[in-house]
Amino acid sequence: MAALLNIVPFVSVDNMMKLVLNVGVERFLCELAEAIEEDFRRWDLFDKTPRIASHSRDGVIELMPTSDGTTYGFKYVTGHPKNTKDGRQTVTAFGVLADVGNGYPMLLTEMTILTALRTAATSALAARYLAPKDARTMAIIGNGAQAEFQALAFKALLGIDQLRLYDIDPAASAKCVRNLAGLGLTIRTCTSVAEAVEGAEIVTTVTADKQNATILTDNLVGSGVHINAVGGDCPGKTELHPDILLRSDIFVEYPPQTRIEGEIQQLPSDHPVTELWEVIAGRKPGRREGRQVTLFDSVGFAIEDFSALRYVRAKLATLPFFEDLDLLADPDEPRDLFGMLLRAGKPNASATG
Amino acid sequence: MAALLNIVPFVSVDNMMKLVLNVGVERFLCELAEAIEEDFRRWDLFDKTPRIASHSRDGVIELMPTSDGTTYGFKYVTGHPKNTKDGRQTVTAFGVLADVGNGYPMLLTEMTILTALRTAATSALAARYLAPKDARTMAIIGNGAQAEFQALAFKALLGIDQLRLYDIDPAASAKCVRNLAGLGLTIRTCTSVAEAVEGAEIVTTVTADKQNATILTDNLVGSGVHINAVGGDCPGKTELHPDILLRSDIFVEYPPQTRIEGEIQQLPSDHPVTELWEVIAGRKPGRREGRQVTLFDSVGFAIEDFSALRYVRAKLATLPFFEDLDLLADPDEPRDLFGMLLRAGKPNASATG
Repeated sequence: MAALLNIVPFVSVDNMMKLVLNVGVERFLCELAEAIEEDFRRWDLFDKTPRIASHSRDGVIELMPTSDGTTYGFKYVTGHPKNTKDGRQTVTAFGVLADVGNGYPMLLTEMTILTALRTAATSALAARYLAPKDARTMAIIGNGAQAEFQALAFKALLGIDQLRLYDIDPAASAKCVRNLAGLGLTIRTCTSVAEAVEGAEIVTTVTADKQNATILTDNLVGSGVHINAVGGDCPGKTELHPDILLRSDIFVEYPPQTRIEGEIQQLPSDHPVTELWEVIAGRKPGRREGRQVTLFDSVGFAIEDFSALRYVRAKLATLPFFEDLDLLADPDEPRDLFGMLLRAGKPNASATG
Repeated sequence: MAALLNIVPFVSVDNMMKLVLNVGVERFLCELAEAIEEDFRRWDLFDKTPRIASHSRDGVIELMPTSDGTTYGFKYVTGHPKNTKDGRQTVTAFGVLADVGNGYPMLLTEMTILTALRTAATSALAARYLAPKDARTMAIIGNGAQAEFQALAFKALLGIDQLRLYDIDPAASAKCVRNLAGLGLTIRTCTSVAEAVEGAEIVTTVTADKQNATILTDNLVGSGVHINAVGGDCPGKTELHPDILLRSDIFVEYPPQTRIEGEIQQLPSDHPVTELWEVIAGRKPGRREGRQVTLFDSVGFAIEDFSALRYVRAKLATLPFFEDLDLLADPDEPRDLFGMLLRAGKPNASATG
């Protein structure tokens, strides 16, 4: 990879798509889930700063840094629900991985696609510990940009092969059906939430409205179901009726963040929750019995992005899906930054000499 | 500039040097100081988050975000004093400017060179309000990467034309003399701090050791001098003897940050200081009389980086020193991120179709 000190490998959107397709979407999701699982097992090593958010009328811009003491990563991520009106994405993201020892960035990458993949991989990883054994049917309520990634992650990691889709906009469900055609899933498009969840062992809610909504009411949730609640992920944005929360055993990524951003913002701040990493590390039980309702209240945490960044960087060791970015000033003599600038103006000067 | 939604303009190190040289170093410093002055005048508009630091044994990685409500900016900046041993820079940086309304980044740029320029521009801007009228002589203690930028900023903004250089390493001073040759400054290389500061109306301290040091002792500071203290900028790193601080009127960027990082970390936390923006906005006096010792305890604040980012972005409207970076996923239909990925694998697919 980069031999010159001024160069940082950059993964564009185009190269990210090539990388994912070259690895294969399902294999990428499985390997990414493995990386996340590894990092969740060594949870104590990580700096856990809550994300730094800049809120405005129309949305939020956030920086999500973390470090394992050797490597540092951060993600820039936005959430602007009205963006779709202008043909823009609701969520855009990019990320950086850096060497803690010298501070030099060692990867800059698009993270809109990568975030979609890591969110789905985290959901499926959590479900491996929380969903009923041998679950084969998942309902997906909300068929927007995250839906297909969830579907394939649950297929790849859990063997889900029956899908029930519901969206208030039938065009969204139709898009999912089109995109998932031929990928090994039996799909039924439903006309109500009730129809979608009936008989599903796993219910994924992933709607996009920036408001408290009741996508799922208590009467629709049968015993033994695992709920994968992905769409409620910022203050004032929830999807589940509080009665569901009270009946469920709730699993979260990082309680200080989830209590602000997740479904549990609807509950008292001392309501008991289990941290997913404790389950993965074998310190706490996941699903204990068949009739238990489990809920993964997912909001997305910096360590998952860190896992995704280091996974992508490792892939680039053998796959050529990056460009060299001239991001870092690298004078011949470190104290001679000004001399480097001056020499750039001389005829025949080298770019970074 | 960028018409396609997936594209973010990127200023590489090479393009930053071309931009600075095309504008001219001194004009760039003056215009940049103007941008900083404008933003300091509207200080109240800005989100002022202290920087988010990740400290390690060998250094620090920081994120410095701010927003004026319309535009958001952040800088990634490192400080690793031991880096020079491996031929790396002590400080590396890059930055991003984004639209608060939709969250989309609108500039990604190297900021190692740009930070050197903004630090010098801020110092000279402060000195316009704090240094003795008609000052012509400046001593620079510490002749590393920041020294020439300081020299030219004070020449361009204040008319300084006499320079006294001192560094414990004579090679550093020699490098400055070489780089500044022919740029209109009369330079004397000195063999002691005492020799350098004698008769200088402005004393700039800009050494790089990551420790509490006493670069300047009280007996060396005559009445009426302005001290521009740039090198003490993190916890445990100071340059001035506390007696100097007690004799000076102290001006700072943002007290909550400077009390941790600046020279005033040596003083009680209620020691009176004046915020530079209040002076610039006309709310507080700067220099009041000839015998006063003034001290600008500079640590670098996010708003200065914001000013630098918006200045560079404005320049790119007419100057072609940027590349198009394919950073943002932009599906034809915002909800169809997965479809975009799938289509990238089809023969003749467009890159971001």
